[in-house]
Amino acid sequence: MLPMTDLARTPEPPYYAVIFTAIHNVSPGDRYAETAARILALAAEQPGFLGVDMANEGIDITVSYWADEASIAAWKRNAEHAVAQHEGKARWYDTYEIRIARVERAYGFTRS
Amino acid sequence: MLPMTDLARTPEPPYYAVIFTAIHNVSPGDRYAETAARILALAAEQPGFLGVDMANEGIDITVSYWADEASIAAWKRNAEHAVAQHEGKARWYDTYEIRIARVERAYGFTRS
Repeated sequence: MLPMTDLARTPEPPYYAVIFTAIHNVSPGDRYAETAARILALAAEQPGFLGVDMANEGIDITVSYWADEASIAAWKRNAEHAVAQHEGKARWYDTYEIRIARVERAYGFTRS
Repeated sequence: MLPMTDLARTPEPPYYAVIFTAIHNVSPGDRYAETAARILALAAEQPGFLGVDMANEGIDITVSYWADEASIAAWKRNAEHAVAQHEGKARWYDTYEIRIARVERAYGFTRS
């Protein structure tokens, strides 16, 4: 995955965030990077997807933003995503944690 | 900041997450790294602090976990933290976004 260079732009709260944190353990020749890129592109096509922020350094953090919990549940059940989840547990991740959170407030700053 | 090598361990939901995403722009000689390390250590001493996950690669992501909104509000008002917030806007961050979210569900996986 290439490093991101911009932040997700999301609507006014409330909306939902899925906070995925992980430690991965990838061997050369693994299809991890291409699978991760494919799954990210697929997520972006789903109903209710609002954006994503990710950084991978030491640990992996991916925060995806969604319109509602139904969109998150549908994405979890997506067939291609389910295959990747299985591969993640079987091969790539030593440990991960997924937190589903309701974003209640948000504010930001951009240098003018 | 040194890369993290383990994930935050948090109690059963509900609790709160503060999702901080940023793009920083640091010049040599800036006190960014030492200030960030100091603020992280200070956060960990605050009432209601539960843990933190962070990764910096392209963009910065810091997700801190808190027992309740009152703890988050008190931390925002902490005097030393307020000085760092001011420096962040004046010097280090091109843009950032802060989302306060209520963690409703969480689940994980650890290779046995």
